[in-house]
Amino acid sequence: MYKIVFMRHGESTWNLENRFTGWTDVDLTEKGVAEAREAGRLLKEAGFTFDLAYTSVLKRAIRTLWITLDEMDLMWLPVIHDWRLNERHYGALQGLNKAETAAKYGDEQVLVWRRSYDVPPNPLEANDPRASYADPRYAGLEHGQIPLTECLKDTVARVMPAWDESIAPAIRAGKNILISAHGNSLRALIKTLDGISDKDIVGLNIPNGVPLVYELDADLKPIKSYYLGDQAAIEAAMKAVASQGKSK
Amino acid sequence: MYKIVFMRHGESTWNLENRFTGWTDVDLTEKGVAEAREAGRLLKEAGFTFDLAYTSVLKRAIRTLWITLDEMDLMWLPVIHDWRLNERHYGALQGLNKAETAAKYGDEQVLVWRRSYDVPPNPLEANDPRASYADPRYAGLEHGQIPLTECLKDTVARVMPAWDESIAPAIRAGKNILISAHGNSLRALIKTLDGISDKDIVGLNIPNGVPLVYELDADLKPIKSYYLGDQAAIEAAMKAVASQGKSK
Repeated sequence: MYKIVFMRHGESTWNLENRFTGWTDVDLTEKGVAEAREAGRLLKEAGFTFDLAYTSVLKRAIRTLWITLDEMDLMWLPVIHDWRLNERHYGALQGLNKAETAAKYGDEQVLVWRRSYDVPPNPLEANDPRASYADPRYAGLEHGQIPLTECLKDTVARVMPAWDESIAPAIRAGKNILISAHGNSLRALIKTLDGISDKDIVGLNIPNGVPLVYELDADLKPIKSYYLGDQAAIEAAMKAVASQGKSK
Repeated sequence: MYKIVFMRHGESTWNLENRFTGWTDVDLTEKGVAEAREAGRLLKEAGFTFDLAYTSVLKRAIRTLWITLDEMDLMWLPVIHDWRLNERHYGALQGLNKAETAAKYGDEQVLVWRRSYDVPPNPLEANDPRASYADPRYAGLEHGQIPLTECLKDTVARVMPAWDESIAPAIRAGKNILISAHGNSLRALIKTLDGISDKDIVGLNIPNGVPLVYELDADLKPIKSYYLGDQAAIEAAMKAVASQGKSK
């Protein structure tokens, strides 16, 4: 039997400002830092240890990982930064306030953009300063690999090769793995692992900075999964994520 | 022409307490944190950027790297943790105060232990709690690879394969590299790069937390090398390192 731990980054400045973030490289808030520290404490207290960590190339996930590893006295752990674990790209919505966008276009349209499986927001223009073409962290990629917008289906299509080619083989090799990533890149992984339908995956809300443990059988099928920590607080955090896209 | 930047970690708690550290995993002091931040600022100001970083498996070097990368907005950089870049193992001296040890055994004996090229301090007993056999960060190594003491010659013999097998090929592949390591693992690299004699290398003192730039030709021979920052302050820091082993 295998175990893997997923973690959505702690609260970011744009979570706090209720803005669409996507590939924008915003940092953690003080609360986000505290969440990451608590995640490390919970993992240590529960006796977890790791051989390898994965994260995205976005600092809110990296800092969450660093703080967690520091708390667990595992700063020396090998870390793989994989751009494919980045948050879903939010296209032309990146930077906009979620409630203002909802007030302008209606709750329903924003819910479609946020939660439909296969309708992406309008893409960024290729020459938009928010596009990632000139960013050195993506210098090794082909132009066509760098998105200008994504629906969750697109995110799944980009995340799962990282699982198949890198993460799953490492699990099978016996590595204990921690993944620090984002709401939608984790949704992509969990959708596939748990076989959740395109329709139901939009209802899955992952709280910030809470370790999510998956126990897997020899075929990497989930046996059970659970969050570490205060279950009532986790429930409340999941509900708060679900209501972010509403105008009031 | 190639460039590589070396950096000794910022001041550690045992630098401050003037104790022999070696493989003991002590953290940075507040001053050490500030030194790392200043190193990042200097590198950014001088227009440096990197594709890859190396560090040891000891947190004083890792935290120095993390702070430097954070300051340069390069948290996403791939990092290779290589135990072969660890500080020289200080054997039975690990944990002892340098001045007290000098008062007990004499300045001369301590200078031999600290600065002779091929005389190691007494080894740790294999069952000494300070030995690294049970430490998970060395779990992948063979028993015989984990030292119980080292002279600088031993450190050179362990560090240089990391250069030959991993770092030098990456430089030749065009990667801009930052190495965050330790006084003696950096001495080992610099001795070999600059062809410094066994006798003269003991006089080379590397200050904490100051970027040291090497420009290399096509054969990776040094063309020139220089520290970034206030040259008078760097001179003073190098003298302070030299005098740490004296009883008063």
